[in-house]
Amino acid sequence: MPIPGNIPALAEEALARCRKLATFSENAQGTTRTFLSPPMRKCHAEITAWLKAAGAEVRIDAAGNLRGFYAADKTPAPRLLLGSHLDTVPNAGAYDGVLGVVLGITLIEALEGKKLPFGIEVAGFSEEEGVRFDLPFIGSRALVGRLDEDVLSRRDANGVSLRSAIEQFGLNPGEIPQAVLHADTFAYLEFHIEQGPVLDSLHWPLSAAEAIAGQTRMEFTFAGRANHAGTTPMSLRRDALAAAAEWIIAVEQTARSVAGLVATVGQIQVPGGAISIVPGETHVTLDVRHKSDEIRASAANSLIQQAQQIAARRGLFARHGLLVNQKAVSMDPFLVSQIETAIRNSGCEAHRLTSGAGHDAMILAEKIPAAMIFLRTPGGISHDPAESVKTEDVAKAIECGLHLLDQLAAAPEFQKRTRRA
Amino acid sequence: MPIPGNIPALAEEALARCRKLATFSENAQGTTRTFLSPPMRKCHAEITAWLKAAGAEVRIDAAGNLRGFYAADKTPAPRLLLGSHLDTVPNAGAYDGVLGVVLGITLIEALEGKKLPFGIEVAGFSEEEGVRFDLPFIGSRALVGRLDEDVLSRRDANGVSLRSAIEQFGLNPGEIPQAVLHADTFAYLEFHIEQGPVLDSLHWPLSAAEAIAGQTRMEFTFAGRANHAGTTPMSLRRDALAAAAEWIIAVEQTARSVAGLVATVGQIQVPGGAISIVPGETHVTLDVRHKSDEIRASAANSLIQQAQQIAARRGLFARHGLLVNQKAVSMDPFLVSQIETAIRNSGCEAHRLTSGAGHDAMILAEKIPAAMIFLRTPGGISHDPAESVKTEDVAKAIECGLHLLDQLAAAPEFQKRTRRA
Repeated sequence: MPIPGNIPALAEEALARCRKLATFSENAQGTTRTFLSPPMRKCHAEITAWLKAAGAEVRIDAAGNLRGFYAADKTPAPRLLLGSHLDTVPNAGAYDGVLGVVLGITLIEALEGKKLPFGIEVAGFSEEEGVRFDLPFIGSRALVGRLDEDVLSRRDANGVSLRSAIEQFGLNPGEIPQAVLHADTFAYLEFHIEQGPVLDSLHWPLSAAEAIAGQTRMEFTFAGRANHAGTTPMSLRRDALAAAAEWIIAVEQTARSVAGLVATVGQIQVPGGAISIVPGETHVTLDVRHKSDEIRASAANSLIQQAQQIAARRGLFARHGLLVNQKAVSMDPFLVSQIETAIRNSGCEAHRLTSGAGHDAMILAEKIPAAMIFLRTPGGISHDPAESVKTEDVAKAIECGLHLLDQLAAAPEFQKRTRRA
Repeated sequence: MPIPGNIPALAEEALARCRKLATFSENAQGTTRTFLSPPMRKCHAEITAWLKAAGAEVRIDAAGNLRGFYAADKTPAPRLLLGSHLDTVPNAGAYDGVLGVVLGITLIEALEGKKLPFGIEVAGFSEEEGVRFDLPFIGSRALVGRLDEDVLSRRDANGVSLRSAIEQFGLNPGEIPQAVLHADTFAYLEFHIEQGPVLDSLHWPLSAAEAIAGQTRMEFTFAGRANHAGTTPMSLRRDALAAAAEWIIAVEQTARSVAGLVATVGQIQVPGGAISIVPGETHVTLDVRHKSDEIRASAANSLIQQAQQIAARRGLFARHGLLVNQKAVSMDPFLVSQIETAIRNSGCEAHRLTSGAGHDAMILAEKIPAAMIFLRTPGGISHDPAESVKTEDVAKAIECGLHLLDQLAAAPEFQKRTRRA
């Protein structure tokens, strides 16, 4: 398929659409759109209109996901799933998630009615950020059959259950089984802003994500002895904050010493702390991520040991608790290589990143080949009204997407190999 | 004067009195007795009875201080002021402050009616901890003429002014000028628990305090950039908590490298911190104390510079604000040497400490020679219901006090030199 000449205009239009969707918010100022909140209805209506105009059918599934379908040149036919999420964090930017849905629509429009040997389904997932029910990926869970009773009985801050929220939006939780992936779906592709500074710092517009990093989340407590800051000589202190500080530096050094490892102490508390009291107790959190589960586990173990060593040397105790231990998810190697080829075909250098953040792609990867295309995020700024994306990068993403459609159309064996039907 | 044989019994009685006074509390459980709170009335009544039985006259001055007076063997005569404070922190122990007042009474009782060439005034200060009006030393300020309009117009958490609190207790703020030190007062001595672990760790029951350390209190902010903990490589972070941690270790090392210096980071906050966000900002407090103002100022300056260097190296900004800059106060050298002699005369080794905590003695030192005798504090535990003092240490303190009365009686030139009349 020849690359159309109007890509810059399509990119402008895609960005304008993202900014339009950003006005559908729970707050008058800024953008906040959580799971099946009232503005999600307007968001669905707007996207439905765009998809219908491009020749697609649209439904809202029982999990609140918007599902558009642009048919193939034959029936039955394999289908490619393109998508991302429509919910946002509080006070969000305009592009995180939404851009991936909008680009799915743009790619269908760019076909100008031409049909491919596979259908294209565009999914706008109802929930990825985990804000309303303190649980992420509610939308994409429905597609892999994991939106179960446990999840449906969760309650939001107002005591509304997930089941009730679905009913209040006018949907039928009894139809959740019909939200699962269509049996002919052979792959999932997600365009998403990087939400980090790597592409920006390297001046790359696009990259493939080859894996989504696993995560370890823990909490640590250093327990020493509270003392008077004036009457306790340095040599007789068991300062819990000083111990935690030494460990925070160890966390940083440990992460710096291993390629691709990130480790973060994001929260710290000194209960009962006062300017004139030597801290008796300090709580800290730890977040460790890497694409290799082995490297991540080894780093987490080392940091537990270092906490205990630092505490013991200072006459304190350290204890820890595990909050999250989530394995890394590899993206499909064939799709990753196809994305690299498509990026090169778009005139860019091809690269691979590991995604440090979780994405719907890692849920879909449980059932079908999945991969992601990251767009450069200026300054790495995301989850913030200042989040942005360059028009020329969106144009490159559209061009890359069109090459990908071509490449996949030329890979009938891949379509067949991965069909579950 | 021969040392009486009943000192162990006097020590037991003194401790029993402290425990009795600890029952006069604003709470049913524990001991909390702030400035002119209702239980202070019962506290005054109890102490008044003990003093009158020992042959002293008692009044409550207009600042709420209890003032007992045991006359000299002649009139007019110099007077020695003995005392400490009767207020407590919330959920206090039984000995901080109160023990110094009770020991003044015990020393008068031990005289068994015998008169000295100087009178003894026992002061139970109404306020030292600074809890109710967020300002310490309100009681002793009145004795040095510093309970002025500014102070009287301060309000507590309920909006009650200090002036109203005095009136509500049945006292007349107009009489505050009559609360000043009697013109014949030649010295102030204060027995107080150390509130620190030094004497306990060295196995010393008593020591003289030769100075009250000066204090610098500051707040620091490290400002970096909040980032996603998963998508931001270590090399591209400006982690405000990691910078603060590095500085906290520098604070500790700086203090350890200078004899007698203490420096404490007691509070830390990461505004908007979350387990998965690289901290963009961190607030910390600093408390620095030393008996030398020069050494303290030099340490504070070094820590400001180190904060700036650490921040600059990491691409952050550091800013700071000064909260307190309080000079060190020297205790009277003659009194300190007399205390050492008295401690030796009591069969103990004599030592000198710097007090890291503020005390009423530093307020009295503005006007008259003042000094303190510290009693060992088991485990250094104070401002806590577990606060304790050994009976045998209290016995040594009484013996030391009686020697001091003897020694001062034999120093008429000192009594004259320091009289303001």
